Amino acid sequence: MADYPQTSELALGVDLGGTKIFVILADAAGRVVSESQLLTPPTYGELEVFDTILEGVARVLSAGEPGGHAPQTVTERIHRGRIRLISEGRPVVGLGIGVAGVVSGCGNIICQAPNLGWKDVGFRRRLEIAVGLPVLMDNDTNVAAWGEYCYGGHGRPESLVYLGVGTGIGGGIVLKGKLYKGSSGGAGEIGHVVVEPGGPVCSLGHPGCLEAMASGLAIARIAKEEVRRGRADSLLPYADGDPELLTAQVVGTAVADGNPLAQEILTRAGTYLGIGIASVINILNPEVVVIGGGVARMGEAFLAPIQRELEVRAFPELRRAVRVCLSGLGRPVGALGASAMFFQRKLYSEDG
Amino acid sequence: MADYPQTSELALGVDLGGTKIFVILADAAGRVVSESQLLTPPTYGELEVFDTILEGVARVLSAGEPGGHAPQTVTERIHRGRIRLISEGRPVVGLGIGVAGVVSGCGNIICQAPNLGWKDVGFRRRLEIAVGLPVLMDNDTNVAAWGEYCYGGHGRPESLVYLGVGTGIGGGIVLKGKLYKGSSGGAGEIGHVVVEPGGPVCSLGHPGCLEAMASGLAIARIAKEEVRRGRADSLLPYADGDPELLTAQVVGTAVADGNPLAQEILTRAGTYLGIGIASVINILNPEVVVIGGGVARMGEAFLAPIQRELEVRAFPELRRAVRVCLSGLGRPVGALGASAMFFQRKLYSEDG
Repeated sequence: MADYPQTSELALGVDLGGTKIFVILADAAGRVVSESQLLTPPTYGELEVFDTILEGVARVLSAGEPGGHAPQTVTERIHRGRIRLISEGRPVVGLGIGVAGVVSGCGNIICQAPNLGWKDVGFRRRLEIAVGLPVLMDNDTNVAAWGEYCYGGHGRPESLVYLGVGTGIGGGIVLKGKLYKGSSGGAGEIGHVVVEPGGPVCSLGHPGCLEAMASGLAIARIAKEEVRRGRADSLLPYADGDPELLTAQVVGTAVADGNPLAQEILTRAGTYLGIGIASVINILNPEVVVIGGGVARMGEAFLAPIQRELEVRAFPELRRAVRVCLSGLGRPVGALGASAMFFQRKLYSEDG
Repeated sequence: MADYPQTSELALGVDLGGTKIFVILADAAGRVVSESQLLTPPTYGELEVFDTILEGVARVLSAGEPGGHAPQTVTERIHRGRIRLISEGRPVVGLGIGVAGVVSGCGNIICQAPNLGWKDVGFRRRLEIAVGLPVLMDNDTNVAAWGEYCYGGHGRPESLVYLGVGTGIGGGIVLKGKLYKGSSGGAGEIGHVVVEPGGPVCSLGHPGCLEAMASGLAIARIAKEEVRRGRADSLLPYADGDPELLTAQVVGTAVADGNPLAQEILTRAGTYLGIGIASVINILNPEVVVIGGGVARMGEAFLAPIQRELEVRAFPELRRAVRVCLSGLGRPVGALGASAMFFQRKLYSEDG
């Protein structure tokens, strides 16, 4: 955003994913004061995840502070004043958290987090008590869309659609400066836009949706299919000869090396992304579409097939009105958007 | 809408289509005082179309008035006070018009009306001068969506998506009580959502979009293909034995008679509509989706395949949150929405 609130305040931002937890401390302009990345406890136990978040919070708050921590729980340390909710004289006003899963409309409950195996977990209030700060919670791609809108350098677009292309594909929609959540809080499931009606199913059983055709999992599936077809001799060395190790990341490495099959696989995924984005553009006429997430970080090679599909499938007037680009914010986009919920709280939550 | 503005005022509503012009005079509650249907002059000359609209306006304003019209132009009659812009003591406050085509964001110019063969026609201001009333102009499916939102009996939904399924397929989106027009005024082109990426092209050249697969033109195309395959013996009698006369309307008549091939064709179109609507639901999480237009008037037979696709392709939470139904307003929905622009002017135009 062009004009940030003039304040010395800081906010915590947490991105809670299935494999990693990313915690930042940032100001209203999106400048990161400190950050910490932790592994999500592989047990996915609620208490363990909870403690890991608190550990991350403690780390970013005490970054630069002299000395180590006493062997107490983080909550004890916070409540005994060992970790002060103030950083170099700047007050910390709240903690925003984005969760990979479905968050209730009121923002209190994690209704479903398939990656963590959670259902109906009341998380927000507990975190609020433990940290001693107001907490706002939302879906991870919603907060990533918000981070991109606030800090992605897009000006003040009338509308912005964010696609997070990683293991799965999620989305978030900002309309008229507010996150758009839809009638029951679930808008932006762009990963489940249909792009090949007779295609294979995604993890939720939807045939031929974007997630089934263009996600990290889809790229890995296509690579393994090519092995079975005997076409993937040039790819296998990147996976130590083991087809099971052919992930999207491995394909990405091969793309960087100029491997033709890897490039073909990426182009196929990009083509489906272009088909899905064309549908989004024809429906919403957005000003900006931003593609983020691990797969998108494979770079510009991804954009060419997208642009090709838009040429053929998007309404000319709407195609001319939209900018489609890759996210420049990288990994912290979600945590940044989570912290930004506090600085743009009215805008963000008015819409909820 | 549950609560209508309390006013005795009336407004004119015009639906300007490629074959017909529909003019109504209605009150704020959507009650039609008088209506008139005229044929769009087949020459599509701007002046002829203009005069036909004025003729329709004169007819609905003078409905119930004694005696015929003097042989003057309608504009002369209006300006000489022969047609009073008042109906039984109720003032007429404006004229709303929906045009089958692309209308500029400011609502002054018809940028493109393929059915009429028009490009960049400054229509609104001329109509304002001729009629002596304020005129508001928008795309025909936008005003139809607005008519459905205001008078369709849906309560006050958070969001409503309207699909007009006729010769082509258009759409309109109402979010938070306002028509959503997008960043350049072109949102709602739901007819061009991709549903079969390798499918035949629509009139604009987009492969496998909803319009190419499920519109009236698509239904006619499929019926003709069946003739070429020798499968359509049972259908041909409905078209006097001439494949060229196999229109969507003819297929509809055969469906009503229980013709199995006609039912199969309609089911195929409904299936693609379901695929497209699933994508819309996954993106927007709307409260209501309404299907109107001539093809939709074929009735409930159309809804079953749509619901089947939604079961498979829409996010369960979002599917449970949405009501998908056929429009109950019939032909006047567009003209009603056009007149409603005046009674809900602030809501409607704030968004423009």
